[in-house]
Amino acid sequence: MSQLKQQVLEANLDLPRHNLVTFTWGNVSAVDRERGLVVIKPSGVEYEHMVAEDMVVVSLANGQTVEGNKKPSSDTATHLALYREFAEIGGIVHTHSRHATIWAQAGLDIPAWGTTHADYFYGAIPCTRLMTEDEIAHDYELETGKVIIDTFHRRGIDPNAIPAVLVNSHGPFAWGKDAHSAVHNAVVLEEIAYMGIFSRQLTPGINSMQPALLDKHYLRKHGKHAYYGQ
Amino acid sequence: MSQLKQQVLEANLDLPRHNLVTFTWGNVSAVDRERGLVVIKPSGVEYEHMVAEDMVVVSLANGQTVEGNKKPSSDTATHLALYREFAEIGGIVHTHSRHATIWAQAGLDIPAWGTTHADYFYGAIPCTRLMTEDEIAHDYELETGKVIIDTFHRRGIDPNAIPAVLVNSHGPFAWGKDAHSAVHNAVVLEEIAYMGIFSRQLTPGINSMQPALLDKHYLRKHGKHAYYGQ
Amino acid sequence: MSQLKQQVLEANLDLPRHNLVTFTWGNVSAVDRERGLVVIKPSGVEYEHMVAEDMVVVSLANGQTVEGNKKPSSDTATHLALYREFAEIGGIVHTHSRHATIWAQAGLDIPAWGTTHADYFYGAIPCTRLMTEDEIAHDYELETGKVIIDTFHRRGIDPNAIPAVLVNSHGPFAWGKDAHSAVHNAVVLEEIAYMGIFSRQLTPGINSMQPALLDKHYLRKHGKHAYYGQ
Amino acid sequence: MSQLKQQVLEANLDLPRHNLVTFTWGNVSAVDRERGLVVIKPSGVEYEHMVAEDMVVVSLANGQTVEGNKKPSSDTATHLALYREFAEIGGIVHTHSRHATIWAQAGLDIPAWGTTHADYFYGAIPCTRLMTEDEIAHDYELETGKVIIDTFHRRGIDPNAIPAVLVNSHGPFAWGKDAHSAVHNAVVLEEIAYMGIFSRQLTPGINSMQPALLDKHYLRKHGKHAYYGQ
Repeated sequence: MSQLKQQVLEANLDLPRHNLVTFTWGNVSAVDRERGLVVIKPSGVEYEHMVAEDMVVVSLANGQTVEGNKKPSSDTATHLALYREFAEIGGIVHTHSRHATIWAQAGLDIPAWGTTHADYFYGAIPCTRLMTEDEIAHDYELETGKVIIDTFHRRGIDPNAIPAVLVNSHGPFAWGKDAHSAVHNAVVLEEIAYMGIFSRQLTPGINSMQPALLDKHYLRKHGKHAYYGQ
Repeated sequence: MSQLKQQVLEANLDLPRHNLVTFTWGNVSAVDRERGLVVIKPSGVEYEHMVAEDMVVVSLANGQTVEGNKKPSSDTATHLALYREFAEIGGIVHTHSRHATIWAQAGLDIPAWGTTHADYFYGAIPCTRLMTEDEIAHDYELETGKVIIDTFHRRGIDPNAIPAVLVNSHGPFAWGKDAHSAVHNAVVLEEIAYMGIFSRQLTPGINSMQPALLDKHYLRKHGKHAYYGQ
Repeated sequence: MSQLKQQVLEANLDLPRHNLVTFTWGNVSAVDRERGLVVIKPSGVEYEHMVAEDMVVVSLANGQTVEGNKKPSSDTATHLALYREFAEIGGIVHTHSRHATIWAQAGLDIPAWGTTHADYFYGAIPCTRLMTEDEIAHDYELETGKVIIDTFHRRGIDPNAIPAVLVNSHGPFAWGKDAHSAVHNAVVLEEIAYMGIFSRQLTPGINSMQPALLDKHYLRKHGKHAYYGQ
Repeated sequence: MSQLKQQVLEANLDLPRHNLVTFTWGNVSAVDRERGLVVIKPSGVEYEHMVAEDMVVVSLANGQTVEGNKKPSSDTATHLALYREFAEIGGIVHTHSRHATIWAQAGLDIPAWGTTHADYFYGAIPCTRLMTEDEIAHDYELETGKVIIDTFHRRGIDPNAIPAVLVNSHGPFAWGKDAHSAVHNAVVLEEIAYMGIFSRQLTPGINSMQPALLDKHYLRKHGKHAYYGQ
């Protein structure tokens, strides 16, 4: 697991580098699906002092710690729920990045308003419903994962095409094929969250972008007809 | 007192590091309750040139300078009033950090709108009432402390659970178990102040967060059932 | 072409330096009109690893790669269309810089509201009309260029006096006499885009600046009566 | 003059350090009233390459260059008009700093909304009236100075107590007892301009601060009863 630990460490260190976190408010994980293990940041440890050996290895099936002498992130149960349900994702990141959190606190989806969005997300970033008192009181972190999953199922959203969500009154989760790509998507999410606030201020009744333009930009970077990049 | 001076120096130097101050607009203090002494930043001295010996030691009881050859911060009387009334706090910080000050100038509380807030503050950050002409004219800095205390008493707020306040038309004070923790809370305050401005812009009639969620987040980090961190 | 490649490389590296790009979201090109060649950034390559040899040389006439072993920017056809139509420009830059993109997403021109604007742009920065489904589906990047050109022709705008445009739902293009000057204009565009959002917030019905003041500032820096600079 | 040149150079270099300028958009000057000379930044020269010898010495009386082989700032006539009228000021700075410029473009005064403002400015920062076509067409930079002066006279404002102005549709000028202090005031102006935008957003009908509080803060830092600082 030492290679995956190193990847997870580096992805965690990318969070302060991209200004996505204050203090220890963020965590990245990655999954090794063959071995059924997840590597995740330890809880409440400062980024500047973290080393690969601090990363905690837990069981994908039951969350038990398999390796490491620190407690895993308090959000571990949310990560595990998502890995179990979203079969193709390899890395997950949770932050309280400023502008994505602003939308989460406002309880609103981030509509697709431009090609920056369409280059990475094939439609609006959904905001989850409020959790019930019961969900909050019992197995809160697991229930957070379930509410995310429910949001994608109920609204028919493909988590591979929309690799992020806003948890209502809380903040964003983003994911990708690995830890690095999850962080990449979290950076983009923060960027479109920022721009969306002010595009909406300038044109309050702003429509979602044209479906044809959304298709064009998403599909020139994703899928078999992609032609962006080398 | 040389250890406490060093702590207060470092906490003061953290202010520019966290972008909480412009020029000399901020001051941190800490109290030694056994000896009845408070260590505080000198007035109007630039952060880059400060050393531990510049810190001023004053009497908690009467504010007289006990050690140091500089004048203490002009806000010293406010710090002392808070230490005398709020028996469990060990450090205080005052800044004009941009977004907390924006709320103070607007004369508004910062409601609890998300888990970032709930992780540190167990309810809205109160904004004080306007001071009377008399309070401003006589012992202004002491009266500022009294208005803060009055706000907490009148509204039944526990200063240990809400370790910050906005002084109307002025700016924030934050506190904690020591100088370092006070600055930590000031950073969080600034962050939620920023996010609150724009969450409210997106959803003008936004409700306070669910009490169950506030409880969950505050209590997973504070008190005897806390499970966040190592 | 090695000198032009070096210029284009440096202009591309100026984009992150001026905070105009996230990841690889920007590209600069320059034209050698005598030889009918355009040098442009390769597609999807990270700025920190780029060297002059990575720059791609394509034919101005037909876009075929003449030199270089990487694919040119996916926006190359837009650049070429602009070089073919706007005979006096020597460099072009495309970014998704935050505030210019905000206006593009809002589908609005940036009016001339102050002398910062007038020092560089002789009137409002136009926002293009939405593209048709057909334009998006076939030769999208070329059609993007045509919509820009159509905007300038239909509205009678001189591309030398207004060296930038906002592509609706997308982001800005800027140009100039060479690659360096194009980036310079992109920086100014971002600055006035930022300021415009909040000037409009403060004074919603704000008028365009006085024509006499626009003339004065534009003409003291441009044309034969210019007297700014050495 | 070599000492004054050095001071003016350093004050100019402080502009990018405090994020008050983009490119060459700012200039600082200082006056030697005994010798009737003003030292000012050369026009359109980049900060990173400036040395003290580049500073231009001009006559306070008639603006003629007395020393230096570069052209003085194109705004020199504005600086001279202010020095001639405001007898106690020793340094002037002009920038297009983002948030002060936003207010200038909106054509609005910055009201005194908090103690940050009151610590430096004894009332609202005035915004000038629009200039007439005639004023713009003839001796524009001199007329800019006259409109500033007219604003202070007509509204009965003391330039020593309110050491800054917003030129309508343009940007801020600030001044002080010397070049360093002028830049200091320009930094504060930018800070209160930022905070004012959002305080007003939170509380649209926000009143000016209490006169007693304005007095208290201004007078604890200025005048014979000041007690702030060492």
